[in-house]
Amino acid sequence: MKRISLLGSTGSIGKQCLDLVQRLPNELQVVGLAAGRSLERLAQQARTHRPQVVACARPEDLKRLKVLIDDPSISVLAGAEGQQAVASLSDADTVVAAVVGFSGLTGALAAARAGKNIALANKESLVAAGALLTETARRHGATLIPVDSEHAALHQCLLGESKQGIHRLWLTASGGPFRGCKRADLERITVEEALNHPNWSMGPKITVDSASLMNKGLELIEAAWLFDVAPQEIEIVVHPPSLVHSMVEFVDGTFKAQLGAPDMRAAIAYALATPDRYPLLACDGVQPWSPFNQNLEFEGYDRALFRAPDLCRDALQAGGGTPAALNAINEVLVARFLDRELSFLHLIDTLAHGLEAMIPRQLASDTLEAVQHADQEGRQWAAQI
Amino acid sequence: MKRISLLGSTGSIGKQCLDLVQRLPNELQVVGLAAGRSLERLAQQARTHRPQVVACARPEDLKRLKVLIDDPSISVLAGAEGQQAVASLSDADTVVAAVVGFSGLTGALAAARAGKNIALANKESLVAAGALLTETARRHGATLIPVDSEHAALHQCLLGESKQGIHRLWLTASGGPFRGCKRADLERITVEEALNHPNWSMGPKITVDSASLMNKGLELIEAAWLFDVAPQEIEIVVHPPSLVHSMVEFVDGTFKAQLGAPDMRAAIAYALATPDRYPLLACDGVQPWSPFNQNLEFEGYDRALFRAPDLCRDALQAGGGTPAALNAINEVLVARFLDRELSFLHLIDTLAHGLEAMIPRQLASDTLEAVQHADQEGRQWAAQI
Repeated sequence: MKRISLLGSTGSIGKQCLDLVQRLPNELQVVGLAAGRSLERLAQQARTHRPQVVACARPEDLKRLKVLIDDPSISVLAGAEGQQAVASLSDADTVVAAVVGFSGLTGALAAARAGKNIALANKESLVAAGALLTETARRHGATLIPVDSEHAALHQCLLGESKQGIHRLWLTASGGPFRGCKRADLERITVEEALNHPNWSMGPKITVDSASLMNKGLELIEAAWLFDVAPQEIEIVVHPPSLVHSMVEFVDGTFKAQLGAPDMRAAIAYALATPDRYPLLACDGVQPWSPFNQNLEFEGYDRALFRAPDLCRDALQAGGGTPAALNAINEVLVARFLDRELSFLHLIDTLAHGLEAMIPRQLASDTLEAVQHADQEGRQWAAQI
Repeated sequence: MKRISLLGSTGSIGKQCLDLVQRLPNELQVVGLAAGRSLERLAQQARTHRPQVVACARPEDLKRLKVLIDDPSISVLAGAEGQQAVASLSDADTVVAAVVGFSGLTGALAAARAGKNIALANKESLVAAGALLTETARRHGATLIPVDSEHAALHQCLLGESKQGIHRLWLTASGGPFRGCKRADLERITVEEALNHPNWSMGPKITVDSASLMNKGLELIEAAWLFDVAPQEIEIVVHPPSLVHSMVEFVDGTFKAQLGAPDMRAAIAYALATPDRYPLLACDGVQPWSPFNQNLEFEGYDRALFRAPDLCRDALQAGGGTPAALNAINEVLVARFLDRELSFLHLIDTLAHGLEAMIPRQLASDTLEAVQHADQEGRQWAAQI
């Protein structure tokens, strides 16, 4: 029985994680839940899973959450303290860090300081503060296990392998809804079209990031930190059906790939189970995947149009707080795109200008304050354009 | 620097192994060579690699081999003793067991008794004497590392995984030169057609076994012993280009696959290097493989016509010396097919009759003598039909 604390329980990953807990009652138990403002859903999750601690984001919601949960055996908290309590709960074996965006960093850092196994779905933590988070985890004996399907795949392909054996990591990209599009095709893209991902059911921010390939760029930075490889040792390859979740190329010229249905629960389950695996095939509602009659092809993409992966590689090479600033710029631009303030083409073009503006600032990232400053620099820049 | 002893140095695997040694002079050194009757090639190999001990199969060839080698610093031996000496050489870190057919068993057993790392290319050792060889290896602290590309792939996919996590092993088969053939198409098959394998360059025995899918059946038995899985937990799937070398399906419904060019040197290098990997990409003459524009499709095969895999599964379930007897029957039938004594269709049909004849005999396999007896039973049966 593994006891988990879940940061971001009402989001897409959080809900899928709780779905797994219900399917695997002999394997998983929830001891902590933290979420933002979806109080009714959070209260419902609390009543179902009966954790020790539940926390909402805003102190002003505390009273209402207590009423909704209506269970004196559950400790109900709010604000930064609440998130901190859930992230460092002494009974938790694994903390699932599934808050979306830069705000997920503080929870991941709290779990790292508590020396937890961290199932990390919040890729922005590593993107913005890779050095800080990995160093904090190392110092406190915490382990970072990726929940992203691509990084979970790489983690699996690297089990038992030595770092010296790695030649390149191959991150697969579906190509998103605009795969094969030319510049002219992107001129009249609507928010609805950008949210229509061909394979994965995910939240809106990451779905837009998939359409712009920024998601793949952020994953490149994430992979570099998780697996301690250089930016140029990570390739992006388009694989439309999202069946091969990623690959490792070794120095002997051979590859290992992890594949299966595009179901995030498999990646979440792996992060929770490792070094074991949960018997999902024995669960109701989990269909076995067959390699027969599948499209397992790989192709390139238009790097001149979809520049985000290369921009992220450049940001990582620029170092310090530059990736944090680029990530912040992207968060603001995506929000403004979702609010219909700017076009999709404007979004993807502006990322490059943002990076150009940030690199000369030589932003630092060695403390949380420095990372927050870099994040603010990016946000301010992106809000003004 | 790893020091290797090579049993079967003049065969296909042996020569590719020595090709690797020449490409990786800082990683590999040859300390022992044993071969059969190809004296001139063996002597040439001895002069190139200057091992401590060289052995040929027949005592009557000893004098000639000494003359051919003409190097007093090399100890030249012959016969069973010679093979035994090379298999158990104290300076050898790894013994490559690459003798083809049942006669390779004694060398593999000698290496197991000497507690060596055994790079096992001789699949018949495990097919005929799986219990004996694995138990001998366990008792003497020897390790069996497969050299077959499929099993090397499975070994790589299973690195860091627990046995409980395995759902099924998926052995890939190219389908051989007669993939998609109907019964009528096989009536006039020539030896030359059977030896024309679409992907792999191998010796004649294994090439015919590939055409009949018997090779995949033998591999099924081999996999069951190597990875301690039940016969029904091993699937055979046809993958014509031999790029995906095999796959593991885990209990969480996901797969791991190992892929790359169909080049046996990669599998040999893996067996010698593990847990490291040799930098073959940095060697001259080794082309990087790219996953772009590759056919990575999987399909079934005609199980009613190509019955060999299911016969091998049945033989394994019958247990004891039955797989040894079926393997012996196949060796004789392949030799007779290569001698144009029987047709290809006759060969594949007779395997089933042979198994039917062997099962009631309840052959044992707990000692070398028992295995040899089972082997003889099969040989006699196949010679008479």
